[in-house]
Amino acid sequence: MPMSTQAAPELQVSRWFNTPTPLSLAALRGRVVVIEAFQMLCPGCVSHGLPQAQRVRQAFAREDVEVIGLHTVFEHHAAMTPVALEAFLHEYRIGFPVGVDAASETGPIPRTMAAYGMRGTPTLLLIDRTGRLRQHHFGQVEDLVLGAQIAQLIGEPVTAIALTSGA
Amino acid sequence: MPMSTQAAPELQVSRWFNTPTPLSLAALRGRVVVIEAFQMLCPGCVSHGLPQAQRVRQAFAREDVEVIGLHTVFEHHAAMTPVALEAFLHEYRIGFPVGVDAASETGPIPRTMAAYGMRGTPTLLLIDRTGRLRQHHFGQVEDLVLGAQIAQLIGEPVTAIALTSGA
Amino acid sequence: MPMSTQAAPELQVSRWFNTPTPLSLAALRGRVVVIEAFQMLCPGCVSHGLPQAQRVRQAFAREDVEVIGLHTVFEHHAAMTPVALEAFLHEYRIGFPVGVDAASETGPIPRTMAAYGMRGTPTLLLIDRTGRLRQHHFGQVEDLVLGAQIAQLIGEPVTAIALTSGA
Amino acid sequence: MPMSTQAAPELQVSRWFNTPTPLSLAALRGRVVVIEAFQMLCPGCVSHGLPQAQRVRQAFAREDVEVIGLHTVFEHHAAMTPVALEAFLHEYRIGFPVGVDAASETGPIPRTMAAYGMRGTPTLLLIDRTGRLRQHHFGQVEDLVLGAQIAQLIGEPVTAIALTSGA
Repeated sequence: MPMSTQAAPELQVSRWFNTPTPLSLAALRGRVVVIEAFQMLCPGCVSHGLPQAQRVRQAFAREDVEVIGLHTVFEHHAAMTPVALEAFLHEYRIGFPVGVDAASETGPIPRTMAAYGMRGTPTLLLIDRTGRLRQHHFGQVEDLVLGAQIAQLIGEPVTAIALTSGA
Repeated sequence: MPMSTQAAPELQVSRWFNTPTPLSLAALRGRVVVIEAFQMLCPGCVSHGLPQAQRVRQAFAREDVEVIGLHTVFEHHAAMTPVALEAFLHEYRIGFPVGVDAASETGPIPRTMAAYGMRGTPTLLLIDRTGRLRQHHFGQVEDLVLGAQIAQLIGEPVTAIALTSGA
Repeated sequence: MPMSTQAAPELQVSRWFNTPTPLSLAALRGRVVVIEAFQMLCPGCVSHGLPQAQRVRQAFAREDVEVIGLHTVFEHHAAMTPVALEAFLHEYRIGFPVGVDAASETGPIPRTMAAYGMRGTPTLLLIDRTGRLRQHHFGQVEDLVLGAQIAQLIGEPVTAIALTSGA
Repeated sequence: MPMSTQAAPELQVSRWFNTPTPLSLAALRGRVVVIEAFQMLCPGCVSHGLPQAQRVRQAFAREDVEVIGLHTVFEHHAAMTPVALEAFLHEYRIGFPVGVDAASETGPIPRTMAAYGMRGTPTLLLIDRTGRLRQHHFGQVEDLVLGAQIAQLIGEPVTAIALTSGA
């Protein structure tokens, strides 16, 4: 996998669902983080991305992998409000933490989406145990490939990577 | 099929999408009418009911069959507003006419939904050429069965039925 | 639908499964007959045609519609023997009558397949109550469309058609 | 994963398809081996197991992972002959090597199937780079889980394992 020595941009979230306290990548160091960036009215997110994220949540232990939904609304802002999202998460029985990507003051693209240069939704990001972005999938990614990529990151020794990236 | 001599209750719609003029069952006499009652945040409607209604629209000629969506919001009213519905119809490429079931002044169940005694969403109604309700499906109905029921209604001679039901 | 005044070619079957006595179109006059022509090693037959035929068997009453499988082997003859077919029907839990299309003495195409001019498998044929071929689908046909076509044939008055075709 | 220090039983194959020379686990040391044990008339193998094996073949490099089909016929022997299997592999476009599990002289269960104690088909076996059996799945296994298990085996250092298992 491609690898950089830089930490992935921190999440900028205006509101969290399904978690008692806000999450941050910094606080999740040591675990692999799967970020499912979606919009509740995006058909590909509803039919593919979110069900896949739910399968990831089931397939891996929480001590190894954290799954986070990120509601990256870049169109139809009046339709995809936090109130609407809350109803959506309830109806679709999405139980993992979901953050609302913080609105930008300068345009329709929310802040985390912009920081990662996402091209649309669904986008799936994989962050390794040391906090670096290792995969950025726009559109669909196969379960077999995703399972392998997650397992590879789980298997990396944290200290060895930290030393390597410390240069 | 069960048959009554009474006309199906008229649609009570507060706003229409995908049609230049309001629709009514009265004006559609002579054609079979398929009504897909849904909520935009109802998973079974999104995965089954609405795609089936789109297939019905493709499979039958418009001179024989009219397909109408009815947004029967009975929960999460703040989430499923007309603005949100408009974005939903755009994203899911739903091209047939969709009416917003008129809100009741006395409770969460909208007026047409109440008049038909619908139990939830998705609900599919079949109205015959003479304006009578002939099928009321709550939940999923198989394409083979639905295709057969629509064809049966198409095949009925309008005048003969009118005479029969005129008694 | 296109309609001719000629009866559909009779089935030429060398062996029957799932029926105590041989079937013939002549003996099935009065009912609509759905013929699913397949090969047991044809992927489209296994994934689409045969499951659809099973759904037809479930969706319609046997007094209205007879479903018949026809094993039209035109390639890999050594692989798709009656012994292999029997195991296939058992494993795939196909319960409707299945006939083995009789081999030709002059080439690989079996006799019924040749008589109908079938282009390959799966092929679905619809025979009306008076014994005439009314639909000939090569490849996939949608459940909605098939359900409608069967219902139309069920709804035709047998006597009226007989008078018309008697000319 | 459970791990033993014993090598997985060698394949006992009476005939190979899709490979110019016979394969053996011994000769594949150094690579992860995925064995898809199937019967050509087993519906779960056709709808799930074999398509999954094809996806594995696509998702991983051949230098890391070898995919082998094993035709473990334990019923309907007269139907699932090598001639029939050859037609099946052609029609279903299965391109990876497939071996016919050698018949036993004492019963219906073929030799490799018996050596592994397989309970039926489909069965998926994972052999690590050092030749040990690491996973034995009877029935369906999810793509996400399988992808992760394969990646874990790919990631194991061969020499370290060899030292460990050398005791």
